[in-house]
Amino acid sequence: MFQSFESTTRPQDGPPRLAALRAEMEKAGLAGFLVPRADAHQGEYVAPHDDRLAWLTGFTGSAGFACVVMDRAGVFVDGRYRVQVKAQVALDHFTPVDWPEVTLADWLREALPEGGAVGLDPWLHTPEQVEKLAAALEGSRIALREVENAVDRIWADQPAPPAGAIAPYPEALAGASHAEKRARIAEALRKAGQRAAVLTLPDSIAWLLNVRGSDIPRNPVPHAVAVLHDDGHVTLYAASAKVTDALRAHLGDEVTLRPESAVGPGLRSLVGPVRLDPASAPLWVLRQLEEAGIEVARGADPCLLPKARKTGAELAGARAAHARDAAAMVEFLAWLDAEAPGGGLTEIDVVKRLEGFRRATGALRDISFDTIAGAGPHGAIVHYRVTEETNRPVTPGELLLVDSGGQYLDGTTDITRTVAVGDAPAAARAPFTRVLKGLIAISRARFPKGVAGRDLDALARYPLWLAGQDYDHGTGHGVGAYLSVHEGPQRISRMSTVALEPGMILSNEPGYYREGAFGIRIENLIAVRGAPALAGADDREMLDFETLTRVPIDRRLIDADLLTEEERAWLNAYHAEVRARVGPEVSAPARAWLAAATAPI
Amino acid sequence: MFQSFESTTRPQDGPPRLAALRAEMEKAGLAGFLVPRADAHQGEYVAPHDDRLAWLTGFTGSAGFACVVMDRAGVFVDGRYRVQVKAQVALDHFTPVDWPEVTLADWLREALPEGGAVGLDPWLHTPEQVEKLAAALEGSRIALREVENAVDRIWADQPAPPAGAIAPYPEALAGASHAEKRARIAEALRKAGQRAAVLTLPDSIAWLLNVRGSDIPRNPVPHAVAVLHDDGHVTLYAASAKVTDALRAHLGDEVTLRPESAVGPGLRSLVGPVRLDPASAPLWVLRQLEEAGIEVARGADPCLLPKARKTGAELAGARAAHARDAAAMVEFLAWLDAEAPGGGLTEIDVVKRLEGFRRATGALRDISFDTIAGAGPHGAIVHYRVTEETNRPVTPGELLLVDSGGQYLDGTTDITRTVAVGDAPAAARAPFTRVLKGLIAISRARFPKGVAGRDLDALARYPLWLAGQDYDHGTGHGVGAYLSVHEGPQRISRMSTVALEPGMILSNEPGYYREGAFGIRIENLIAVRGAPALAGADDREMLDFETLTRVPIDRRLIDADLLTEEERAWLNAYHAEVRARVGPEVSAPARAWLAAATAPI
Repeated sequence: MFQSFESTTRPQDGPPRLAALRAEMEKAGLAGFLVPRADAHQGEYVAPHDDRLAWLTGFTGSAGFACVVMDRAGVFVDGRYRVQVKAQVALDHFTPVDWPEVTLADWLREALPEGGAVGLDPWLHTPEQVEKLAAALEGSRIALREVENAVDRIWADQPAPPAGAIAPYPEALAGASHAEKRARIAEALRKAGQRAAVLTLPDSIAWLLNVRGSDIPRNPVPHAVAVLHDDGHVTLYAASAKVTDALRAHLGDEVTLRPESAVGPGLRSLVGPVRLDPASAPLWVLRQLEEAGIEVARGADPCLLPKARKTGAELAGARAAHARDAAAMVEFLAWLDAEAPGGGLTEIDVVKRLEGFRRATGALRDISFDTIAGAGPHGAIVHYRVTEETNRPVTPGELLLVDSGGQYLDGTTDITRTVAVGDAPAAARAPFTRVLKGLIAISRARFPKGVAGRDLDALARYPLWLAGQDYDHGTGHGVGAYLSVHEGPQRISRMSTVALEPGMILSNEPGYYREGAFGIRIENLIAVRGAPALAGADDREMLDFETLTRVPIDRRLIDADLLTEEERAWLNAYHAEVRARVGPEVSAPARAWLAAATAPI
Repeated sequence: MFQSFESTTRPQDGPPRLAALRAEMEKAGLAGFLVPRADAHQGEYVAPHDDRLAWLTGFTGSAGFACVVMDRAGVFVDGRYRVQVKAQVALDHFTPVDWPEVTLADWLREALPEGGAVGLDPWLHTPEQVEKLAAALEGSRIALREVENAVDRIWADQPAPPAGAIAPYPEALAGASHAEKRARIAEALRKAGQRAAVLTLPDSIAWLLNVRGSDIPRNPVPHAVAVLHDDGHVTLYAASAKVTDALRAHLGDEVTLRPESAVGPGLRSLVGPVRLDPASAPLWVLRQLEEAGIEVARGADPCLLPKARKTGAELAGARAAHARDAAAMVEFLAWLDAEAPGGGLTEIDVVKRLEGFRRATGALRDISFDTIAGAGPHGAIVHYRVTEETNRPVTPGELLLVDSGGQYLDGTTDITRTVAVGDAPAAARAPFTRVLKGLIAISRARFPKGVAGRDLDALARYPLWLAGQDYDHGTGHGVGAYLSVHEGPQRISRMSTVALEPGMILSNEPGYYREGAFGIRIENLIAVRGAPALAGADDREMLDFETLTRVPIDRRLIDADLLTEEERAWLNAYHAEVRARVGPEVSAPARAWLAAATAPI
């Protein structure tokens, strides 16, 4: 079982640790200290060694940070975690802060009216974050101070940093050799007049070198730092324990392996201009370059866009992974529909069984994130993770929201289905149908080249907006190829103005959440492609989406009267394709269930 | 008659002027010279004195610029003017350039591979434009040089600068006194720690001081420069000929009037920080401040947002102006429908008659822009203006696109209707209906606070996109209150990320253009407002649009089968309201026409 149901934190552990941190701050002359969720690689999952925010506060969400001063401790969380944080932290010692509505700078100005030094660990913050914060603090008497991590100093039994092996990734699945990729990115550096680029994002390194790692759960990436030189040569700084002979053979002569400890001297010996991504690199890296007087060229990680545009081989892999995953999901939904209406199942039962169906494919490497199985009101907690303490019966007459995915060698999946447990609750049908209309609007979209995710986001929300409803998360995130299930820069979100390009994989996941009652989300993965020609079309390049996910959407929750003819036609065609493609791959009982679940409406 | 049908330029006048300009450039040691359409106030309409681009090249569009070097002269125009420019310039001397796809910097790098000095008049370019160009030219040997205007030196009979009187604008229509407005903006300056703001946008000055001017056609604004001090005092630099006793009385003691010639010394004597809008102020203003060592605080013109949020009085005025304008439009459409199918009308007849109906209201101050009346293929020229040379019969069986508006003391209107002349051309019905679906999507939109025009733009395009079609202009622009018909910052466009706020007036004008065949555009003005409460809605602040324009949309061009039930309901409700509100205000024949034109479909 990949997923665990233990509560890894307890609210009551926070206050004594907070007291110890304040004592440490006092010693260091700090009026405040920042504790981000992030590690040095700014990923969504962190190793136990890096889970400082959870250790200190109890809050285990995938994003957020704490700011501790002497008389208060704010835990900054976004819309996804507003409910969860209240259950996880000791509320008499920690104060949840609605972020980003309340900015850290505003909070600090109020918390430290007399000013003072606020400490931060330069490994855990990016230059952009720190510079933005410093700018917002201008005119106050608050100063930022780069210090050794104060949490590490008080965390007696802090786990060791991860040391997972780095393994080669098959070129046949990647669609390009690492030599080709290094040459291509090096050429971009030369064109920009840059001598080297520092890479600190684990999935950029994994993609560039066709390797995968095992340092953190859910994401098969290595923690390492790499320097790509403008001749295509790479210096890879990684703990020696991670390096095998197979890796050495795969990387060859043009990739030099160095131990982690060599990264500081290595950076300080570079010749500039050196490209550095101020949005993702640790501030510490920038400081090394600055202290050595090396010219820094700020710019996005050069692997981001090439990695986002999947190769033909990666897209073929994604299709295969989704076909496999769809069969497991159909087995699961058929089982659920047979078992759940009788009562007696819990959220944990559901999660276990779903992982079991995925494991039965024989190809599951990991789940792509901890499965969210929210029954009834738990569905409204956007990033709910069930534990033994929160586990809830799956009660007939309620909704069950299940958001899950698998990591397969050929691709990463991510799917959400919201189903009725037995009879569909009447109040949920109209919002479910509106969410479905939003999903269909994105699925059917055809749009000119140049359009960004921001431009499409409202199409998914419009049916909800008309009813005065909305959801507090993006409509879609980028997805990696056996990499992170959340990858940039492509997104369907008001935050994303990067043009969508063929090969990009995204999620399409509108939702609706009624706190204390139910949550609805429907999610498919989609891939951008050149749109097929159309009679009467303009002479302009248009793109559209290929839907990768092929799993039924609960017909019992759909109010067909709210669908247009086109929407109904899309749904029926989708279900017909699901039946035709997935039916032959599943057991006889699941096939019978599938036939009913995909009948036209 | 406000509108004239003369061709103000001839292609053959361009080449000798171009030769003279090159001789002047040679004398000044310039390898290139920039000739923008803009005047010092960056508005859409320019006085004859400032119409340098048209004088030199023949191109009369409202946006664009020329760049002249010794062996070529590029005329840079956007998607709206690609057809028009080819008819207006001598193509053997001037080369139309697709802008912004081709940037000026790229063009210059190719045109001047050896480098050289490119002259520009610092009155006619903003700091942002020049700095962006300079950055894009980095690494080339091309230098920008600020010089006296080389076109002015060769333009022997250049008209004098305008000297139109500045008149008070009634406080009852503005909804706030200029003292209140000055105090409010001055407070914003004090909060930002700024001592003064320089205003160079004519409609900002007109709005702030509750005045209107008469320096340029179509926009009732004064050419002037104003300095708002942080105590609410204003120094207004304007030619003495524009100042009347009534104006002096209206402005009172807290506004000091100075002649135009005093602006340089006035700017150089300011105490910083002085706020300056780098996107709209002349570079010349920045240079005065810099040369005097005055600290400049770059920031948007502080009047932009307050002006865009119309007061209750301004919205009431807009409703009255639109009611008046709708009656004139209905008379016009009834007349057109009676006359046009017989043949014999021309585009000029249509424009004259429409202006006549607006004049008959007794309240028309000006038209808000030159009426676009494009019959058949002329409809595909997005900003077509008919002249005696281009005038075309309005032929039965074709489409006629009419985009027009009135300047009334209480408001500015802007409306486009596309109508069938006699029998509707079959090929136009599907795209017309898609354009209508887009208009309805925006009209019906309800959206949370914080949403910008960029987020809504795709809603209007989606029905066209699904058919592989699109239009190369924004969906909507801001509209002033008896000011410019194009005002910022609010827009429905991929260019606009400013949150929409209650009181903002915008156009809603999707279109579709088939070059050489027809053009379709449907345009209503809409005002943002707090959305009425709705049962079942989330607890979040939602906004929606009030439609101001009330004129029938040609039912003969609608393929009702392509409309959803909701769209059909919106259209029928809209037409019912048009009939009920406008019917009583028009002549008996128009009322009979209106009843048929607004019958339910």
